[in-house]
Amino acid sequence: MSLIVQKYGGTSVASPERIQAVAERVGRTVASGHQVVVVVSAMSGETDRLIGLARAIQNPPSARELDVVLSTGEQVTIGLLAMALEAGGVPAVSYTGAQVRIRTDSAFNKARIEAIDADNVRADLNAGRVVVIAGFQGVDANNSITTLGRGGSDTTAVAMAAALKADECQIYTDVDGVYTTDPRIVPDARRLDRITYEEMLEMASLGAKVLQIRSVEFASKYQVSLRVLSSFADGPGTLITTEENIMEAALISGVTLNRDEAKLTIVGVPDRPGIASGILGPIAAANIEVDMIVQNTGADGSTDFTFTVHRNDFDKALSILEKQAEELKARKVESDRKIVKVSLVGVGMRSHAGIASRAFAALAREGINIQMISTSEIKISVVIDEKYAELGVRTLHTEFGLAGEA
Amino acid sequence: MSLIVQKYGGTSVASPERIQAVAERVGRTVASGHQVVVVVSAMSGETDRLIGLARAIQNPPSARELDVVLSTGEQVTIGLLAMALEAGGVPAVSYTGAQVRIRTDSAFNKARIEAIDADNVRADLNAGRVVVIAGFQGVDANNSITTLGRGGSDTTAVAMAAALKADECQIYTDVDGVYTTDPRIVPDARRLDRITYEEMLEMASLGAKVLQIRSVEFASKYQVSLRVLSSFADGPGTLITTEENIMEAALISGVTLNRDEAKLTIVGVPDRPGIASGILGPIAAANIEVDMIVQNTGADGSTDFTFTVHRNDFDKALSILEKQAEELKARKVESDRKIVKVSLVGVGMRSHAGIASRAFAALAREGINIQMISTSEIKISVVIDEKYAELGVRTLHTEFGLAGEA
Repeated sequence: MSLIVQKYGGTSVASPERIQAVAERVGRTVASGHQVVVVVSAMSGETDRLIGLARAIQNPPSARELDVVLSTGEQVTIGLLAMALEAGGVPAVSYTGAQVRIRTDSAFNKARIEAIDADNVRADLNAGRVVVIAGFQGVDANNSITTLGRGGSDTTAVAMAAALKADECQIYTDVDGVYTTDPRIVPDARRLDRITYEEMLEMASLGAKVLQIRSVEFASKYQVSLRVLSSFADGPGTLITTEENIMEAALISGVTLNRDEAKLTIVGVPDRPGIASGILGPIAAANIEVDMIVQNTGADGSTDFTFTVHRNDFDKALSILEKQAEELKARKVESDRKIVKVSLVGVGMRSHAGIASRAFAALAREGINIQMISTSEIKISVVIDEKYAELGVRTLHTEFGLAGEA
Repeated sequence: MSLIVQKYGGTSVASPERIQAVAERVGRTVASGHQVVVVVSAMSGETDRLIGLARAIQNPPSARELDVVLSTGEQVTIGLLAMALEAGGVPAVSYTGAQVRIRTDSAFNKARIEAIDADNVRADLNAGRVVVIAGFQGVDANNSITTLGRGGSDTTAVAMAAALKADECQIYTDVDGVYTTDPRIVPDARRLDRITYEEMLEMASLGAKVLQIRSVEFASKYQVSLRVLSSFADGPGTLITTEENIMEAALISGVTLNRDEAKLTIVGVPDRPGIASGILGPIAAANIEVDMIVQNTGADGSTDFTFTVHRNDFDKALSILEKQAEELKARKVESDRKIVKVSLVGVGMRSHAGIASRAFAALAREGINIQMISTSEIKISVVIDEKYAELGVRTLHTEFGLAGEA
């Protein structure tokens, strides 16, 4: 008998019918001899409805009180799912975050889990009950209700799996696993059977929005095997686990596409020590996150400095940079919203040289100009013109043989 | 500085606008120098919506899990009201029943309060905060969420007032007080300034549905002064308090009308000891509550036995009684749905003889036949034909001079 934590998101519990379908799936897991803890989100739409009510009264709402209101969404779902399980003859009991005692810090709306007291949950499991837990929420040292921020239910599931030393944490979503790339761009993209935490983190942060980054970090830290599955179709999904659990690491696991960035260049800055922080300091002070950074020093003693930011921050960054350009006596500021970032991710890269040059050559053959490059141990990212987005992804996906059967 | 507990029901918090109006009213109470605890219900319609969701999944729903779901209704309101107060510059903090620690027994859906730990609430009040508490809910010894049943928010308010030794517990409703009778029947019915707990209990149980009976019992037990006020209009409302706090008790405080009962008679039962329990035993066994009971023994050694039940139980009671009639060899069963019960309530009755005969005479003058009579120390009830309902009420209201100015 193994212990499984299953997490179902908002669309999986969007109606009484879907909640019943989840109960049936949980019932089948129980029938095959597993102990099951289920973590659920609010019914889809509910969190937005509650935020709307709050904003109609106070905008922005009091952080503490917003969590009091928002946490009711998951609380409704746990009660309903426990009912559906009981109605199907599966003994079940629900717990709010406070009832489990998922202890968090006091950062309302974006709290972090500090400790979990899983004794009651374990006792219920041993008594043969399915335990249904409200995701996304906890309680701080003052007994105030906290929430973990959007997508926090994934984190709750992984944290519960870690606390209970569960054999697997299964995240049910509306996709049936993690793919080598976006199937809407490359129709023969392949579902990955296994992938390492590091790869998943790179893919998640690069735009494959299957899992919350924090939950993957958490899983990695506590070595919780994480499986992404569809709640609407059967199938093995994708297991996210340690490198040791993956027999033969693929050279490249996936190609990701990020359309959320924009590029800014300050041209012809007189080059001198400290110029990079002189440019980026005011950007950071405005709470704008910078992703890729490239600096080219010209022969004339001046330098061009290019970086990317989230498109939402573009206007703000541009106006800051224009002010900087004057102060730093730069020649001008150039900017481009119409760029995308394409990345190759794979732990196999570590042991294989020449991946980067092979990727650049493949893009060049298609006439795609590379504007920026950034690499890490398991990732190569390039910034290219937006109009080549799909072509760039397809080219790399094909070049590294990612299509077809697993 | 006095400590006031205010309770606002579902219609008073039905929308963001109404919640803001409540916050303004609370703010005015704070501004006049009071410490304030506010107890709120779920936004009107919310409890029914949640029950509907639950029933769509399991019918009847698991009692424990239903309370998990239902308790979210008040939890949303406390967060929103605390926001509205903060937005208006009034420091506030919300508490669920579990957070206060309103300890109840484990009778889910109809739990009873056993103890309240008001220390945190008191600390917040002393720190200058308004404390907003979810009505209707508590937590049992196992840390499971419980609810007190419909109308339980009144009970929460009174219990908090008792625990905090508040100076007054104000129940805001959609009426501006307790009236001498239903103003829809007698337009010049008068709002009572003061009324005793006992009178209020009789009036509530007889159909004046301003307050939950339990909350009045609670208030009486702990000597909490209770005031019924309108949340939509200003005014002093009606104070419900001890007899000692009422200078001169009125002879009669009010006339109530109850249309919910029906009458059953088993005619010509051979009279012998134990016949009453022989008839009522099976009725009680079917969980049917009997209100008034009259037995007339005839000259022929047989007896007629008449009683009233709630109209909802009429059919069930009738079929039981018909079976009984055969077994007991009674002559026949008669029944009448078209009756009403009119009652006079007043602590002044205790010290004044002749109230009953004066009431009967007044009804007789109007040609109203009295079918059954029952009396208690502070109440006289008569059953009359439904068609005389309003006339009966008006007749008694006038006879005892209840109309006009207080």
